[in-house]
Amino acid sequence: MEKIKQLQQDFADFMAKTDFNGQPKELYEPIAYTILQSGKRLRPMLCLLANEMFGGEEQEALWPALALETFHNFTLIHDDIMDKAPLRRGKETVYQKWNSDIAILSGDAMLAMAFQFTLKPQKGAELAKQLGKVAIEICEGQQMDLNFETCGHVTIDEYLEMIRLKTAVLLATALQMGATVAGAKEADIQRLYDFGIDIGMSFQLQDDILDLYSDVQVFGKKHGGDIADNKKTYLYLKALEMASEKDRKRLEHLFTLRMDHDEEEKIEEVKAIYDHLNVKEAVEQVMLDYDRKAFKALEAIDLPEERKTHLKTYAELLSGRKK
Amino acid sequence: MEKIKQLQQDFADFMAKTDFNGQPKELYEPIAYTILQSGKRLRPMLCLLANEMFGGEEQEALWPALALETFHNFTLIHDDIMDKAPLRRGKETVYQKWNSDIAILSGDAMLAMAFQFTLKPQKGAELAKQLGKVAIEICEGQQMDLNFETCGHVTIDEYLEMIRLKTAVLLATALQMGATVAGAKEADIQRLYDFGIDIGMSFQLQDDILDLYSDVQVFGKKHGGDIADNKKTYLYLKALEMASEKDRKRLEHLFTLRMDHDEEEKIEEVKAIYDHLNVKEAVEQVMLDYDRKAFKALEAIDLPEERKTHLKTYAELLSGRKK
Repeated sequence: MEKIKQLQQDFADFMAKTDFNGQPKELYEPIAYTILQSGKRLRPMLCLLANEMFGGEEQEALWPALALETFHNFTLIHDDIMDKAPLRRGKETVYQKWNSDIAILSGDAMLAMAFQFTLKPQKGAELAKQLGKVAIEICEGQQMDLNFETCGHVTIDEYLEMIRLKTAVLLATALQMGATVAGAKEADIQRLYDFGIDIGMSFQLQDDILDLYSDVQVFGKKHGGDIADNKKTYLYLKALEMASEKDRKRLEHLFTLRMDHDEEEKIEEVKAIYDHLNVKEAVEQVMLDYDRKAFKALEAIDLPEERKTHLKTYAELLSGRKK
Repeated sequence: MEKIKQLQQDFADFMAKTDFNGQPKELYEPIAYTILQSGKRLRPMLCLLANEMFGGEEQEALWPALALETFHNFTLIHDDIMDKAPLRRGKETVYQKWNSDIAILSGDAMLAMAFQFTLKPQKGAELAKQLGKVAIEICEGQQMDLNFETCGHVTIDEYLEMIRLKTAVLLATALQMGATVAGAKEADIQRLYDFGIDIGMSFQLQDDILDLYSDVQVFGKKHGGDIADNKKTYLYLKALEMASEKDRKRLEHLFTLRMDHDEEEKIEEVKAIYDHLNVKEAVEQVMLDYDRKAFKALEAIDLPEERKTHLKTYAELLSGRKK
């Protein structure tokens, strides 16, 4: 845990030294506003921990770490426009606080900045290519997510592909970048990337569960927001798969109701169906499968086990195995 | 002219070979729709001509040329959302044909693709850095342009800085990229960059003039659109500077009127003031100064004059010196 805290502090210091100011201020203020908000810094941490695992230079890895955080925040700013989200991390979203033109432009500038940051270390060209690849994948994932809102039928496989593209690939790329900077072997970089995909999948499924089942206070969001928004999450798709004809029809009907309906009542009814079907347990089982696969990939990496301790601990914290 | 036509053809062939298809189609169709429309391919041409001038490999320069065109089209897609423009090159804009979410995302993907393309040649890291720099500058320029719509007073210097950032730097970067790929000397790359800035400034000022004074048929846009939109162009700012107190007040008043007013009448009245003040001639004089400065920078480049012929001819075509 000491090492993890130290890397978190190093990254916070590095961010604090970075100058996000510029002219015109309408472009730069939203950038500083977004990126300097406290977040988990999950992607930078995965990058730094992967780098540390392979004995890389921390100073070099701080650049892709910063690129990843900048990039991630760009995606949030643009996603919030599309999702019409009023709040993010408990604060007004950029398009809401300023306007959507400013949100589009500040996001664009952050995407360009992210590339600039990847190009600082020696292996810049490789890191920038990795960022380019993941950036396109994330656009694909976000577009799939938008499509799901309007298309009638979504399969579980389509949903898994969407969260792979929208969430998992960026965690995998964070690890890949750290390992690349450290000069790890190709085969090990690939294993670490696979590890990232699997913990990413598990992480997103956990998010789906937490939306309905978490302690409200801790998570800071309203219970059942996904149900209120008719979001076809894994819970919903799994429930459809497991449900009787009658329950399936009822669920499908409930997921056509909009705001005008009693929201609380709808959430309660959907939750009752989920609970009756043991959907939460079914999703937790899938998460566990991803976690197992993830840690197997980590084990296969050609390094002494003790070198993997910090990344492993961090990933266990994420997956909720370790409190 | 033969060489210019050949490079245009080579670029068209290179574009035709590039695969802009992918899944989900909602993301990729707008990309292909935008980039495969016929355009002047101005930025790719500047890149290829700069490369040819310094004796570089055309195959290598085609990548940054493609990056520049992809990047330029990304800026158009996002700008059209902000400007609420229904048409572009006589066809529906992306946000209009699909929707603004799709326009945001397709644009984002194109920005990432542009970086991917710069990273293909040997000097990829350098080209990607150049793209990162210019991308941020263009966001700054677009934000300044948005600011001008709402802020009361714009100085001529502020306007020139806006068009430098919004238009000129990308032409300059196109030349810089071509010269970089060809391995030109730093000092010569800088001269060519300066040349690009000055022809870019002249090019934009010409655009301001053409909006009001061109033959409608040729330009394909309505006369006086900038006046109808109350756009503070160089013509307007120069007129304010040259006008009597009475004309200045009248102009300022006319530029507060919105759609509800008789548009034709307003354009005619503004044009009459411009003509009376000889504003067009004054702006042409400024253009000429930029052109002179541009060609002086080109002359200073350490190459035999005959090597500069193609780029010079192309730039003269652009500036309208050569028909």
